[in-house]
Amino acid sequence: MPATPLPLAELRAFAETLAQAAADAALPHFRTRHAVENKLEHGFDPVTLADQGAEQAMRELIHAQYPEHGIFGEEYGQEPGTSPLTWVLDPIDGTRAFITGLPLWGTLIALNDGQAPVLGMMSQPFTGERFVGTPEGAWLGEQRLRTRACARFEDAVLMSTSPQLFDIPSRKAVFERLAGQARMTRYGGDCYAYCMLAMGLVDVVIEDNLKPYDVQALIPIIEGAGGRMTAWDGGTAQKGGAVVAAGDPALHAWLLTQLRPAL
Amino acid sequence: MPATPLPLAELRAFAETLAQAAADAALPHFRTRHAVENKLEHGFDPVTLADQGAEQAMRELIHAQYPEHGIFGEEYGQEPGTSPLTWVLDPIDGTRAFITGLPLWGTLIALNDGQAPVLGMMSQPFTGERFVGTPEGAWLGEQRLRTRACARFEDAVLMSTSPQLFDIPSRKAVFERLAGQARMTRYGGDCYAYCMLAMGLVDVVIEDNLKPYDVQALIPIIEGAGGRMTAWDGGTAQKGGAVVAAGDPALHAWLLTQLRPAL
Repeated sequence: MPATPLPLAELRAFAETLAQAAADAALPHFRTRHAVENKLEHGFDPVTLADQGAEQAMRELIHAQYPEHGIFGEEYGQEPGTSPLTWVLDPIDGTRAFITGLPLWGTLIALNDGQAPVLGMMSQPFTGERFVGTPEGAWLGEQRLRTRACARFEDAVLMSTSPQLFDIPSRKAVFERLAGQARMTRYGGDCYAYCMLAMGLVDVVIEDNLKPYDVQALIPIIEGAGGRMTAWDGGTAQKGGAVVAAGDPALHAWLLTQLRPAL
Repeated sequence: MPATPLPLAELRAFAETLAQAAADAALPHFRTRHAVENKLEHGFDPVTLADQGAEQAMRELIHAQYPEHGIFGEEYGQEPGTSPLTWVLDPIDGTRAFITGLPLWGTLIALNDGQAPVLGMMSQPFTGERFVGTPEGAWLGEQRLRTRACARFEDAVLMSTSPQLFDIPSRKAVFERLAGQARMTRYGGDCYAYCMLAMGLVDVVIEDNLKPYDVQALIPIIEGAGGRMTAWDGGTAQKGGAVVAAGDPALHAWLLTQLRPAL
């Protein structure tokens, strides 16, 4: 960990600069018809010119401003730094939303201090929204974000990107059981769902098969708003995998008792 | 049918006025925490102050401008007119998107001439988008919309609001089979998915259990953009129920051969 306290205001302002550069690179490709190529021979993992251009633009800014920082990005992988600080980047989280024209994708920007993400940003440039979280709180622009109380799962609004996320039978089974118990289940949120949880409009997000860059920017936003976000075993969510977020910490604790046995 | 041709430009301008009034009534309730009440004792059918206020505002404008027109709205039902023209209104299509904070809901405004919807508008006031369709074409603002060619279902992007829409086993089975064959399946679109189809970003939407006011505004948008939207039996989609829309008419014809046997 760094010996001196992090200059959070400076780093947050820099994250805004990164978000703007990513938006400038990505938005011209949004809703164009020829921006999709296949990354895999089998299956479908769309990656767009937007994705690559946005990550490249952010990497160049980091190289210039903080050459000592590490970078870990979805498109171009790991680039170790000489500092314990690492920028964890997903230029377009929610590529399926992006290619179908839905404004639910986002550019995810996290700063990890070597222990945990200490700054997180989700930028949705089509709507002009930027959600940010730090140890001091979470905001959408000037608006302070707070999760809502929801002690009983029967009262909860549950979101998940897709029921197809769960490919291990025991995990699929526990998700489907919970989806049947919640007051309402809604699919298709990607990173946007976690931000709506931070706003107090969604109570629970349960997902699986996530990567570190899918989650690290979201943890400070959710925890800064008063929620909890961990792996299904209760450990850190920062490695991705099977993740659960809840606005009410008591509900999060109950969810762990349900999810842990399915691991 | 009216004896004289409809004054489409005037009616389209009036639909914009309705959309603005609905937006003014609905948007202040978007992302507030206390806008939800339950309409049903069992199950969950959220209806918001926004829904009621937006429909009321539109009804008042229609009464003042076209007292002879009928109205059929989601919240306040049928109000017959002396003219064959009827405004078919869904003030908030996608109430689940609305209450979870996602900008995928829309105000749906159709004008039915007694035979079919001849004017359709989808207004999403948070993003400021208005999609419109007439016998002359379909537009998002000034942008002319055209569906894309997609002859083979294996190449298609399929959207549907939720796999939970399908509660009849034979219909659920055919949907799940098709969902497994498409290049990509994405949930959670509501009315927005049909507009993305009109834009040429989505190839197919398959749904069930829709109401007339869920679909009538979308038919002119999709057909004005070059797509096809019908019931699963190939008849008119305007009554709702089980509906299929495709951007490529040839793909639509193939889909009917798959869906019809499940009815």
